[in-house]
Amino acid sequence: MHDVHREITRWLEPLGATVRVDAVGNVRAFYNANETPASTVLIGSHLDTVPNAGAFDGTLGVVLAIACLEALEGEKLPYAIEVVGFSEEEGVRFAVPFIGSRALVGGVDDHLLGAEDARGISVRKAIEDFGLDPCKVGQAAMYPETCAYLEFHIEQGPVLEKLGLPLAAVEAIAGQSRWELNFLGRANHAGTTPMDLRFDAVAAAAEWITLVEQFAKTTPGVVATVGSVETKPGATNIIAGEARLSLDVRHADDRDRKRAVESLIQQAKQVAERRGLEVRSTERLSQRAVAMDAFLTSQIEEAIRQTGCTPRRMISGAGHDAMILAEKIPAAMIFLRTPGGISHDPAESVVVGDVAKAIECGVHLLHQLASAPTFHSRTCRA
Amino acid sequence: MHDVHREITRWLEPLGATVRVDAVGNVRAFYNANETPASTVLIGSHLDTVPNAGAFDGTLGVVLAIACLEALEGEKLPYAIEVVGFSEEEGVRFAVPFIGSRALVGGVDDHLLGAEDARGISVRKAIEDFGLDPCKVGQAAMYPETCAYLEFHIEQGPVLEKLGLPLAAVEAIAGQSRWELNFLGRANHAGTTPMDLRFDAVAAAAEWITLVEQFAKTTPGVVATVGSVETKPGATNIIAGEARLSLDVRHADDRDRKRAVESLIQQAKQVAERRGLEVRSTERLSQRAVAMDAFLTSQIEEAIRQTGCTPRRMISGAGHDAMILAEKIPAAMIFLRTPGGISHDPAESVVVGDVAKAIECGVHLLHQLASAPTFHSRTCRA
Repeated sequence: MHDVHREITRWLEPLGATVRVDAVGNVRAFYNANETPASTVLIGSHLDTVPNAGAFDGTLGVVLAIACLEALEGEKLPYAIEVVGFSEEEGVRFAVPFIGSRALVGGVDDHLLGAEDARGISVRKAIEDFGLDPCKVGQAAMYPETCAYLEFHIEQGPVLEKLGLPLAAVEAIAGQSRWELNFLGRANHAGTTPMDLRFDAVAAAAEWITLVEQFAKTTPGVVATVGSVETKPGATNIIAGEARLSLDVRHADDRDRKRAVESLIQQAKQVAERRGLEVRSTERLSQRAVAMDAFLTSQIEEAIRQTGCTPRRMISGAGHDAMILAEKIPAAMIFLRTPGGISHDPAESVVVGDVAKAIECGVHLLHQLASAPTFHSRTCRA
Repeated sequence: MHDVHREITRWLEPLGATVRVDAVGNVRAFYNANETPASTVLIGSHLDTVPNAGAFDGTLGVVLAIACLEALEGEKLPYAIEVVGFSEEEGVRFAVPFIGSRALVGGVDDHLLGAEDARGISVRKAIEDFGLDPCKVGQAAMYPETCAYLEFHIEQGPVLEKLGLPLAAVEAIAGQSRWELNFLGRANHAGTTPMDLRFDAVAAAAEWITLVEQFAKTTPGVVATVGSVETKPGATNIIAGEARLSLDVRHADDRDRKRAVESLIQQAKQVAERRGLEVRSTERLSQRAVAMDAFLTSQIEEAIRQTGCTPRRMISGAGHDAMILAEKIPAAMIFLRTPGGISHDPAESVVVGDVAKAIECGVHLLHQLASAPTFHSRTCRA
């Protein structure tokens, strides 16, 4: 990551930006406005990724921010631009995502600094080991003049490819529920237990999984996934006494998401009851949906239109740094088509022409915002 | 096991039996006939069991054989009786079941003696370590005069309990197929992949598991079980790209069993194809059904009737030593009711009154066979 920061600095400084690495390891490059005082538009994404990942998730958003700055060819706008390359978005090391962006909204507290990785090293210690001072995390907060956050990111899904479109404006980041369900039956001999005297946890789980899929397919706006199934004892010749399943439900509307979860858990109870089994359900995560800023989103649509493409609004099913920044400032995102919807995989890719369109879109967007003083002056001049 | 052999010897010798431990670690007790030459009726079961097991699976059959001998109170019959306590029926240590009973039918060859446990210790070495001579395995073969094998065993299933009966005559040991199925879809982000663009291996597997259950519930004589499900990558927020399932199918008729397997694999292919997935299936085991001897089975029914109980015939869904002995001599089994159908578990139990009925049944059976010279003389006097 030190090498990455050095490389990025080598690109940014010749563009006239002042580069620093803040106390949580975000690279931050400040590009002045053509006047002072001025508000600041933050543009970026994250530099970390997952193990066995591709090259574009996160990093492309940082590179595109830099490319937009470069495309300005030294032109100064009525607002400053801060390019940010966030650290620790994925949450791989400390099982806590968005550490970098949380620092900008004042969300890195002692509790978070005390979180430990698998080897017992805390966030605080990791920051020190990286050569930074965890006591200065407060100084990583965004500048008070910051009036907007913009993020380019690969879609990580197949929707734009299916539609034949390179770019989309994200109107909301879906809320997310994660549950664990345990179907508890009775382990028994697979040869000696007649079909009508079984309390088969796998069969009950399977029936419910088909209901989850049917429900999500027939309920607009919901995606629901059972990604993990564990069977106990899990032997070929033993009827499973227990099946432990994960459930992931997402929706742009929090009430609809909660209704979906309630309905699915109700169905699990009905399946279990009819079969003489028990089912236990435990909530592991409930993350509310986050709307992107309406003005910025419409500006993104206009910028996409300016590139000659058809604008499209979509919901992001995945969480992003923009979700964190949206707690404090207007935030918006631009998605790039992801071939095959493949991400978090070495085969992750982008279409080169789409990247060119994204840069073009970004430059249009910056100019549009420059000519919308009611927007970029509303925060800082107050 | 040395202690067990010592204890059993301490019970058998006062009854007038000559006790030895053969070269594969079976305890063998010979009780003379009232005349020579005479044929021999072998009665027993196995002394080993599984980890975290109960007290009755196997051992009860050996204890009942001894109890029947004791109940004769020194009476000699026109055939000799050999009580056997088999070693290594479960196959826990070497992943090869029935080693003890195989030795009686000449089935312990160099290949089997070379099989190794998890620590790399061969059957041959284990026999030596136990203080026996693996070169003498040939001498463990049953006596040529042996004309029948009788085995008491707990049912290990809930059928007799459901029927309210203490004992049953086993008419066949079901054949068994074990397969592994791999549903191969595409791993993808659970949030960003719309329901209609998924190739979800868990959803496909679940649909098929419900079909397996439906098929077995509506096809007489079949039991079919998916006991193990493994999902890859198996994360809450990732649509599974792979689901690996076990399939166990049993039937008393080998053709019906094979037809059932074919039908289920065909259904798996249809499910996969409709969903744009692939499915791979691999046979892991195909074990033919083994019929018990018709004469002995009817004699067992008569003996059960003599105890005042209603005789019942049933199929054993589990494999037993009787299956191995049946390769060479008439074999038959008597099942005892298993409360809750629970076995291979510390909660495994029997009803004390059922055990008394089993002893009574065994003594009736021995006397019936004594007065059926066409049976016990047909093998040895030839």
